[in-house]
Amino acid sequence: MLIQMKNISELMVDLAYSSLIFNNKEIAEEVKYLEEKIDETYYKLQEEAIKKAIEDKNPASAVILIRLATSIEAISDSAVEIADVVLRDIPPHPVLLESIKESDITITRQKVTQDSIMVNRTLGELNLASETGMWVLAIKRGDHWIFGPTENTRILSGDILLAKGPIEGVEHFKNLCTGRDKKV
Amino acid sequence: MLIQMKNISELMVDLAYSSLIFNNKEIAEEVKYLEEKIDETYYKLQEEAIKKAIEDKNPASAVILIRLATSIEAISDSAVEIADVVLRDIPPHPVLLESIKESDITITRQKVTQDSIMVNRTLGELNLASETGMWVLAIKRGDHWIFGPTENTRILSGDILLAKGPIEGVEHFKNLCTGRDKKV
Repeated sequence: MLIQMKNISELMVDLAYSSLIFNNKEIAEEVKYLEEKIDETYYKLQEEAIKKAIEDKNPASAVILIRLATSIEAISDSAVEIADVVLRDIPPHPVLLESIKESDITITRQKVTQDSIMVNRTLGELNLASETGMWVLAIKRGDHWIFGPTENTRILSGDILLAKGPIEGVEHFKNLCTGRDKKV
Repeated sequence: MLIQMKNISELMVDLAYSSLIFNNKEIAEEVKYLEEKIDETYYKLQEEAIKKAIEDKNPASAVILIRLATSIEAISDSAVEIADVVLRDIPPHPVLLESIKESDITITRQKVTQDSIMVNRTLGELNLASETGMWVLAIKRGDHWIFGPTENTRILSGDILLAKGPIEGVEHFKNLCTGRDKKV
């Protein structure tokens, strides 16, 4: 459960910055939705940890587990705060957004065209993360979103991918999406 | 300044998990040290933002900037909390650490041997992040650490690299460090 919380909180931070960069309220709403999931898991984890402590007559593991979970929960709260900026009406300064985009690790958005080698292949088959450094955070397909896709998620023609990675990896990633590069 | 805070806070979270995985107090201490840097930047940013608001007679940008900085500062506080677990004496359960290591994004540690192609090349020259997905978070060189190396940081024989990336990228990364793989 802690690992699940860790993974969701990291996705939330990435999505929060994405919502900011692309001034996208749908992504910001997802961050809020994921916060509910984190909270559920958090309370379940506390309960289980304490039950286990009573069983083992040993508080040590429960104390650490709950401490770590509390820290992770706090990270997810901060992600909500960041996303919340987007849900309000004062837009952040464009210079700020540009500098987030141009930092070493960036977030980019690209449409997959029909002649891309990604089409009909899963993220796992493509080995995108280990071969290009780019992580797909979310996919916009038609009018819905797939947030936090897994290695079994299949890319379709027309998908819009939201990806995070090193700025040097962006061009290759975009060329893969548009079919210009034929090799991952 | 906000981008600097964002980058440091992300490094702090990664280092906090690293200190946990490798039960390493030196890394945990660095997280605490970085917190001081974050706080300094945070107060400077608040001051500058408010000065600018007075100059422009417009509160909007300052409000958003300070809100974002506050959220980032909160993330760095959580990283300190995580690292603090390591600085105390109750070690987390090995099963927990194993599952952090085996999550999709993992943290690994590897020594660079003298016949590695990395030796005497900078991280920028190697394009490690975009070619392998692995980010070097820190380097242990002799008895000191280089935390948050840049693209100009040169790898030396005997360095111990602490890197974060997709679990599928770990083997290639380790083989590059030991000289078994000769091509990034």
